[in-house]
Amino acid sequence: MLKINPTRLLNDLNHLRTFGATGPGVVRLSLSATDMTARRWLVDRMRDAGLDASIDGVGTVFGRSRNAGPALLIGSHTDTQPTGGWLDGALGVIYGIEIARALAECEETKHLAVDVASWIDEEGTFSGFLGSRSFVGDNVDDAIGHARDREGVLLADALAQAGIADAPRVRIDEARHKAYLEPHIEQGGRLEAGGKSLGVVTTIVGIRELALRFTGQRNHAGTTPMAIRRDAGAALVAFIARMDDAFKQLADADTVWTVGRIELDPGSFSVVPGRADMYLQFRDADPARLDAMERALATLIDAFNAENSVHVEVSTSEPPEQPVVMNSALQTHLADAAEALAPGQWERMPSGASHDAQVIAHHVPACMLFVPSIGGVSHDFIEDTDEAHIVLGCEVAARAAASILHELNRHS
Amino acid sequence: MLKINPTRLLNDLNHLRTFGATGPGVVRLSLSATDMTARRWLVDRMRDAGLDASIDGVGTVFGRSRNAGPALLIGSHTDTQPTGGWLDGALGVIYGIEIARALAECEETKHLAVDVASWIDEEGTFSGFLGSRSFVGDNVDDAIGHARDREGVLLADALAQAGIADAPRVRIDEARHKAYLEPHIEQGGRLEAGGKSLGVVTTIVGIRELALRFTGQRNHAGTTPMAIRRDAGAALVAFIARMDDAFKQLADADTVWTVGRIELDPGSFSVVPGRADMYLQFRDADPARLDAMERALATLIDAFNAENSVHVEVSTSEPPEQPVVMNSALQTHLADAAEALAPGQWERMPSGASHDAQVIAHHVPACMLFVPSIGGVSHDFIEDTDEAHIVLGCEVAARAAASILHELNRHS
Repeated sequence: MLKINPTRLLNDLNHLRTFGATGPGVVRLSLSATDMTARRWLVDRMRDAGLDASIDGVGTVFGRSRNAGPALLIGSHTDTQPTGGWLDGALGVIYGIEIARALAECEETKHLAVDVASWIDEEGTFSGFLGSRSFVGDNVDDAIGHARDREGVLLADALAQAGIADAPRVRIDEARHKAYLEPHIEQGGRLEAGGKSLGVVTTIVGIRELALRFTGQRNHAGTTPMAIRRDAGAALVAFIARMDDAFKQLADADTVWTVGRIELDPGSFSVVPGRADMYLQFRDADPARLDAMERALATLIDAFNAENSVHVEVSTSEPPEQPVVMNSALQTHLADAAEALAPGQWERMPSGASHDAQVIAHHVPACMLFVPSIGGVSHDFIEDTDEAHIVLGCEVAARAAASILHELNRHS
Repeated sequence: MLKINPTRLLNDLNHLRTFGATGPGVVRLSLSATDMTARRWLVDRMRDAGLDASIDGVGTVFGRSRNAGPALLIGSHTDTQPTGGWLDGALGVIYGIEIARALAECEETKHLAVDVASWIDEEGTFSGFLGSRSFVGDNVDDAIGHARDREGVLLADALAQAGIADAPRVRIDEARHKAYLEPHIEQGGRLEAGGKSLGVVTTIVGIRELALRFTGQRNHAGTTPMAIRRDAGAALVAFIARMDDAFKQLADADTVWTVGRIELDPGSFSVVPGRADMYLQFRDADPARLDAMERALATLIDAFNAENSVHVEVSTSEPPEQPVVMNSALQTHLADAAEALAPGQWERMPSGASHDAQVIAHHVPACMLFVPSIGGVSHDFIEDTDEAHIVLGCEVAARAAASILHELNRHS
């Protein structure tokens, strides 16, 4: 009978938390001395679990089962944001190690192959998703030669400093890696609000990031009558109201859009702003809806420019990230395991955040399992999840892992 | 027959422009070496005009007529903004010198007393209106001991560096100074838009400056559904729309309000802003309307807080400046002179900008005359006024000065 060990799971998560502990949170930036110490500890844990483990040439910790494939790859990341929570990606990595151990301890599953990964730099201290991108064969040499952290340190120098610049880089083995599972905290408040304990991810949403610049006429705020002003800030505010109306027409309950930054120039009490900038991001699981929102924005901009003395221009700030659908057969394994262990306490949901799974899904069938975030908080020192949810999530992931591997073995 | 000399007037304005000339504009910050050179040149011009002139202990250039009072004081300022125009306050100072000369050259007016001032630091490089405040007897020692410019230089040190720290400070002579005239460029586009050449100022508007802070909940922009967000930035945008509606109900054509700065925290694409700040300024000639606008704002804030999950608080950023009414008898002298020399080409109007006249008006009956600003531009290198308007403005000011002084002498 397959059984995870909750005490061992929680002990490992709590031990990993000590590397970079800052109050209740964790600061463990990719390739920092703290991060490398944690990675060496992970190698030891993976070896204890019977995996052949090492740190690769970009920093990913990879543990390979000695069992023959087909293998299920379980992974996430143990690097954090500058103000990170203790679980975030760490949860999925320790789940992977615990599931490898639990499968090895059970007669019916000890022949199954689970490989475990802690991908480097999911959070983008240097270059987001570096580990998973390297793993699937994307060219990361440009990033290594040019990406820098906030202090200006070059990624290549950080790899040399960490002593891993010459280590081999782990690469996908397409004959072996037949499925990918990434357990993660939800990072939102949807499960908690709905009284659910588990989320089976349907899609990782797509993202559009645009910058809008409004150009009017800078003027004296005392001597310029309202009627003749070309106030770029007032135009921006009016535009947002129209944009909200248009987006509401197109949105479903999961569509989100955010104005994260507004800057008025010159930014003083006494000057009518001559220029105003805003950052706009929107996310949705449906690529057609993202396109429709972008078209609606373009239509609004044309109409606005036709009738206003303030001119607005839009530019693309980041290349669009397309939505990535999770493999439906794998979703079914997760859903069946969730229903077996927590009947009625789970739901299917999109992931509003980005994850390594979106990189790997282009090469290996992929799925994700969420556990609730207390108060919906993430990327914050106070991020947390109930212990009962942490344990339940691992039990469901282990059951699904066995089920996935049994099926892979039947078909191989 | 009283006649100003247009060539002499324009030559002096153009010569003053050379001190700190930067392209078409002027950079002549209070007490800078450039400013002090210009002040010494002004002293010479005032002495040539027959005035007893010197630079006082705060930097004001004061030229006193040798004629017995009652005296008309004509003044403005020759310091500039960091990106100043060539006329701004310089116009009124050179008008004063030219009018003193013109009166002295005319048999019917040569006995009349015109004193001329270039008040230091109207623009607030160290402490706004320093010269006029010192002149009327306000305590400026605190400012001298504590005010600093943008580079951190203490006002006291700047006065010592300029070599004037121990010079006596010129003070109002209430037995002598019976009227104050400040000619100035309009700094707005109202005269130009109306096809007028001159403005007789009715009131210098009052100013309220408030800071509004919206506090919501910072959250992940991907994982936080719209329905449960407490987006401080979205709340700010919605509030501005309501505020605009409320202010429009209360405003007349001269009421102005400006949101000059907006800051969202933390200010990135991927984070729902947890905090949003805005700077709000409004100006009006009617103190009752300013109070009504502030009450309307308070009512809006209460209603907003009662129905929103984002909380807004208002704080006063600067002490309110009350509107200052210009003396009506002096307005009539200006209006009569304008109508005589430019029939139908003048109008009465409020001053949307602040001026030394608002300080002096509390002690001496005061009036202001405006000439048009091309394109309504001020505090900018390209600020300019048609030569014909510059000359006409001085002719009208001279005629009004004679008329004011004749009346003062009749009543003294």
